[in-house]
Amino acid sequence: MNKCNVAILGATGAVGQRFIQLLENHPWFTVAEVIGSERSAGRAYGEAVNWVLDGEVPAYVRDLTVKPLDATLDSILVFSALPKEAATREFELAEAGHVVCTNASLNRMVEDVPLLLPEVNAEHIGLIDIQRRQRGWTTGAVVANSNCTAMPVVMSLAPLRQFGIKKCLVVSAQAISGAGYPGVASLDILDNMIPYISGEEDKLETEPLKMLGAFDGTSIQWLETKMSASCNRAPVIDGHLVNISLELADDPSFEEIIAAWQTFQGPAPVGMLPSAPAHPVLYLQQVDRPQIRRDRMAGRGMSTSVGRLRACPLLGIKFAALSHNTIRGAAGCSILNAELLSVQGYIASFQPVIAQSVTA
Amino acid sequence: MNKCNVAILGATGAVGQRFIQLLENHPWFTVAEVIGSERSAGRAYGEAVNWVLDGEVPAYVRDLTVKPLDATLDSILVFSALPKEAATREFELAEAGHVVCTNASLNRMVEDVPLLLPEVNAEHIGLIDIQRRQRGWTTGAVVANSNCTAMPVVMSLAPLRQFGIKKCLVVSAQAISGAGYPGVASLDILDNMIPYISGEEDKLETEPLKMLGAFDGTSIQWLETKMSASCNRAPVIDGHLVNISLELADDPSFEEIIAAWQTFQGPAPVGMLPSAPAHPVLYLQQVDRPQIRRDRMAGRGMSTSVGRLRACPLLGIKFAALSHNTIRGAAGCSILNAELLSVQGYIASFQPVIAQSVTA
Amino acid sequence: MNKCNVAILGATGAVGQRFIQLLENHPWFTVAEVIGSERSAGRAYGEAVNWVLDGEVPAYVRDLTVKPLDATLDSILVFSALPKEAATREFELAEAGHVVCTNASLNRMVEDVPLLLPEVNAEHIGLIDIQRRQRGWTTGAVVANSNCTAMPVVMSLAPLRQFGIKKCLVVSAQAISGAGYPGVASLDILDNMIPYISGEEDKLETEPLKMLGAFDGTSIQWLETKMSASCNRAPVIDGHLVNISLELADDPSFEEIIAAWQTFQGPAPVGMLPSAPAHPVLYLQQVDRPQIRRDRMAGRGMSTSVGRLRACPLLGIKFAALSHNTIRGAAGCSILNAELLSVQGYIASFQPVIAQSVTA
Amino acid sequence: MNKCNVAILGATGAVGQRFIQLLENHPWFTVAEVIGSERSAGRAYGEAVNWVLDGEVPAYVRDLTVKPLDATLDSILVFSALPKEAATREFELAEAGHVVCTNASLNRMVEDVPLLLPEVNAEHIGLIDIQRRQRGWTTGAVVANSNCTAMPVVMSLAPLRQFGIKKCLVVSAQAISGAGYPGVASLDILDNMIPYISGEEDKLETEPLKMLGAFDGTSIQWLETKMSASCNRAPVIDGHLVNISLELADDPSFEEIIAAWQTFQGPAPVGMLPSAPAHPVLYLQQVDRPQIRRDRMAGRGMSTSVGRLRACPLLGIKFAALSHNTIRGAAGCSILNAELLSVQGYIASFQPVIAQSVTA
Repeated sequence: MNKCNVAILGATGAVGQRFIQLLENHPWFTVAEVIGSERSAGRAYGEAVNWVLDGEVPAYVRDLTVKPLDATLDSILVFSALPKEAATREFELAEAGHVVCTNASLNRMVEDVPLLLPEVNAEHIGLIDIQRRQRGWTTGAVVANSNCTAMPVVMSLAPLRQFGIKKCLVVSAQAISGAGYPGVASLDILDNMIPYISGEEDKLETEPLKMLGAFDGTSIQWLETKMSASCNRAPVIDGHLVNISLELADDPSFEEIIAAWQTFQGPAPVGMLPSAPAHPVLYLQQVDRPQIRRDRMAGRGMSTSVGRLRACPLLGIKFAALSHNTIRGAAGCSILNAELLSVQGYIASFQPVIAQSVTA
Repeated sequence: MNKCNVAILGATGAVGQRFIQLLENHPWFTVAEVIGSERSAGRAYGEAVNWVLDGEVPAYVRDLTVKPLDATLDSILVFSALPKEAATREFELAEAGHVVCTNASLNRMVEDVPLLLPEVNAEHIGLIDIQRRQRGWTTGAVVANSNCTAMPVVMSLAPLRQFGIKKCLVVSAQAISGAGYPGVASLDILDNMIPYISGEEDKLETEPLKMLGAFDGTSIQWLETKMSASCNRAPVIDGHLVNISLELADDPSFEEIIAAWQTFQGPAPVGMLPSAPAHPVLYLQQVDRPQIRRDRMAGRGMSTSVGRLRACPLLGIKFAALSHNTIRGAAGCSILNAELLSVQGYIASFQPVIAQSVTA
Repeated sequence: MNKCNVAILGATGAVGQRFIQLLENHPWFTVAEVIGSERSAGRAYGEAVNWVLDGEVPAYVRDLTVKPLDATLDSILVFSALPKEAATREFELAEAGHVVCTNASLNRMVEDVPLLLPEVNAEHIGLIDIQRRQRGWTTGAVVANSNCTAMPVVMSLAPLRQFGIKKCLVVSAQAISGAGYPGVASLDILDNMIPYISGEEDKLETEPLKMLGAFDGTSIQWLETKMSASCNRAPVIDGHLVNISLELADDPSFEEIIAAWQTFQGPAPVGMLPSAPAHPVLYLQQVDRPQIRRDRMAGRGMSTSVGRLRACPLLGIKFAALSHNTIRGAAGCSILNAELLSVQGYIASFQPVIAQSVTA
Repeated sequence: MNKCNVAILGATGAVGQRFIQLLENHPWFTVAEVIGSERSAGRAYGEAVNWVLDGEVPAYVRDLTVKPLDATLDSILVFSALPKEAATREFELAEAGHVVCTNASLNRMVEDVPLLLPEVNAEHIGLIDIQRRQRGWTTGAVVANSNCTAMPVVMSLAPLRQFGIKKCLVVSAQAISGAGYPGVASLDILDNMIPYISGEEDKLETEPLKMLGAFDGTSIQWLETKMSASCNRAPVIDGHLVNISLELADDPSFEEIIAAWQTFQGPAPVGMLPSAPAHPVLYLQQVDRPQIRRDRMAGRGMSTSVGRLRACPLLGIKFAALSHNTIRGAAGCSILNAELLSVQGYIASFQPVIAQSVTA
């Protein structure tokens, strides 16, 4: 089977490293190009990178030479872990014909950029056609994934759309890895919590509405839900936990809600993609779950764990939800997006084969 | 000046140790009796205690012999750090003529037991007269302080009562010391958050309403506010942080709300009590405060720090508040309560002298 | 291929859970019996256990009924994660014909019990023949693995035996999981280090000498090395780090020492056992490694990472070494021991097949 | 009483903040000038500083305008918390007549710069006369204090000099605050230990020898002791813990050693200086002390806590010692040095009055 070469923008940063780690032995994609800052360009990846994930730099990328941000790329598929200020490069690459799956926040709210989450809004992929048409592109595209904290919110809300989501109040406890590297100073977070993360609450009050919205063939109709978010930094390595209170239009029983979570699946062929978890949402029965350290790696970091469903005297129901912020909430989701784009024919001249029942 | 001997129930536990620590060099009270479990009774306090606070056992209590729970006590004033299941002893002692200032949860919701917080509801002290009358006591009393997590909620809401508090949604991040010792296993909390604390949400949805209620000369009329609480355990030593969303009846400006916090003072003579902080509520202007480690010791652990006032799209306003859970939220508050009882003449034959302007 | 049923003593404890976790999908062994305390006996494992490892209880054991400690067992192979005081049961089971691979400390120093570490002292397995002969057993045996902190010491010293190990000074920083569950109270270890672990220094000054000793066909001749150990508890989940200073009889160059580590392998067939890591010892070139969190899972938790080799002005050389304490230092090592016993024919009526080059 | 104005170099950094904090309400010194980087110069201190210590910026310095590093200073006494690369400024200021008490590492090993630790080597102050003579200065001087990790080493060794210190092996666990701010990234240290701190082991193997050396009227004769140090970063806020093994020339009993620690005092008038702790060294009897969090604030952060004296099979004795790294190990020690300089007449035109028994 032919494989698709990919490039990684911002490959030496914390999220870039997750891409490298998750793409090791990927059945479809081969990391062929790594792009870094001026400081890193021209050096071997293994020497340029300050590897902050566990273990050592995967052997398969150690000898790749880091390319500069303005390099012409050979790979049609590009993953971006660029910091916001450098992410303007993404549109340039898309214009040059590359499909850019980005984790950067810069372009998420651009109207013709899908904020793709395969299990939740696979149909938003159609926005790429609009994007290409109105920008005059043929093979290029920019496809974003959401803020890492939006992930447990959207994954736990999506199965409940059927009940009508009217109001949603979210309070987060977010891992330090969400701030990248060096990110949060240890003096700021050991034995501490910080009730503030710059820009985060705005994202959390808007991105889920776009992601949960409907694509009408032309644009995304945002979900009309009132959102309120309060974001906190916590002394944990990975994993974003949210406490959510929710007002629904209908009055489903707890059993119906739990069933909605437990049976939730994306539309075919999402569930058969290599990075798709068997259970996008797991409802944990124990009274004290989900817990950040113990549940973040559920579904190899791609499942969202939900628990503690109970009545909220103010809004109706409340519960806790947890996603791994740098896997499901960042690199893993970008890769899943790229897998969906591949099977749907959006990566020119690359058509992976998945199980026979899958047809684009 | 004469001083008042005091006894401490549960003196060897984590909260009992805070009483010992805070009462060292107290201008009015002298720790004369320490009461512990069967295991400790008969031993010198310095040997019986597994001191879990910083530093060493204060020299002044090392040689006190620990008395058993059923001992007859000499001290009229008794502080209780008993676990809930042993707290039935409190009413026995009150019946025997002792004034018991308790941190235990058992009796908080008994109708004639005041849930006293001097700056907030000093007038609830009148419930002691009701308590004594209907129980036929003359010198005894049971006076409770609230759950430690209720503290930052009540302290931040009290100054806003004037605006009409209609709905309040609280999400907490609570320190491990709130669970006592040994309490939370380190394997359960390092690099982790737990979205559950047994019994805590119920307390948080009820105690503040009693504390913020009005005493009509006979009983407490609870505040009619809808409360919703979600409680989380966090890997921090001391300090409970709450994210609060609030719906007010009136529509005060941010300036008016901040002014209400900054100028908040209890009624005379509360502000002149030895353990009273200069500022019961501090509003911090920095965008990322209050932080648990950095702000928990404000006002020697007796001030509540508030910050991040901003609009809540759902309920109107939101903010963060923080109190030290074992000082303001436990032992320190009990001591402040006892100080108020003293100046108000509720401790038989003990009348402290504070600055001349104070009259009971 | 036939598989061998195994029983786990102390299956609900922290180390027992590691056995359960590591034995899921094991190619040779099937967990058929789980043995717990009185409190757990008779209940389904999934209900009796308070699962403290990450994720959820593996599905394959949830419905096994926990047996009491005095139950007659069907499985010939028994893993023991018993606390020291219950470990007297091990000899009873061995007498009854079971091969007990134990992680308990009770019997480690019994003269005819091998302290087995396959890569290091596979020949100590011959002590089982002595054990059986002098105790009149035919199929039973007790085989121990070492204290978890001895592991990085022994694994890093073993390749250097050729240079003559005269003196060894060890200072450890040990993970909380080494104390089991609930083990270390969070109030004792958050933002703290404790320079004391009960009984640990004695073990560290003796067990390595037995493990590194020679089996002369009759008994173990302990290594004659002067050992000094200082043990510290650190606020980390898993992984024991040791700083070692060493005096060698010879004067090898740094290159020779590093080569000794990097090329170190156990005798055939150890390297082909299912749980054996490709590299028992890894030498890390980076100046700041090994690090506990980043290197503990090397070789799926079975490799020992060594780094920072440099001159010691007092003893000659010094370096840092790290092993995962509940995998390599406990359950994983017991399993590796049992694998070696299996291929060597010590598990009656069970003979696994490994790659053709292996002959017992 | 007249007070002495002081300037603080590097006042906005982490150690600079400790100076500010410790000098609030100091009986002799008044912070009159704060010096910062280019970025801070010209701004009010309260605005320029990112206050990383607990609580808020002390009110007394908020309105001081930060001066640039090359400013001419009015204060004769200058405290330096400069980073190493900027510390060349210290000699310029000394040449201009200022007495610089520095915490920077740059000049510690300059031959005529005393590495002053009042309780231990007060007589090294005489090196200032040599310094002034050979440099042609009259009022200026540079006086250093040691590396923060050298502190628990020197403080615990000094009382044992009488027994002859032949060999000393130190393994440290060091707090994150030792690296300044932002210093250690939280991703590098949460749930982790790092067995490496750049440059630290060299300092630890040399500075104690200078500090414990004898001043012969001309220069310091270094103590002839073999030192070996291994340094580790630990996830604790403040406090450096060392495990020390020691070979002594004599063979004192444990009682004699403990008595040496417990009775240790600096020469008069050191014990009467405002910042001097009542007990420079505290020996803790409990088997599991000193602990970093619980003992670091002993003597308001100025006492060194020692514990766990026991036999070392290799070197003779071993024990653990702990000092607060940014108080006793940095700012607090510089202040104590300046106090000694003041009473000894080294601060021109400033002569503080301490208790009558003190004569210079």
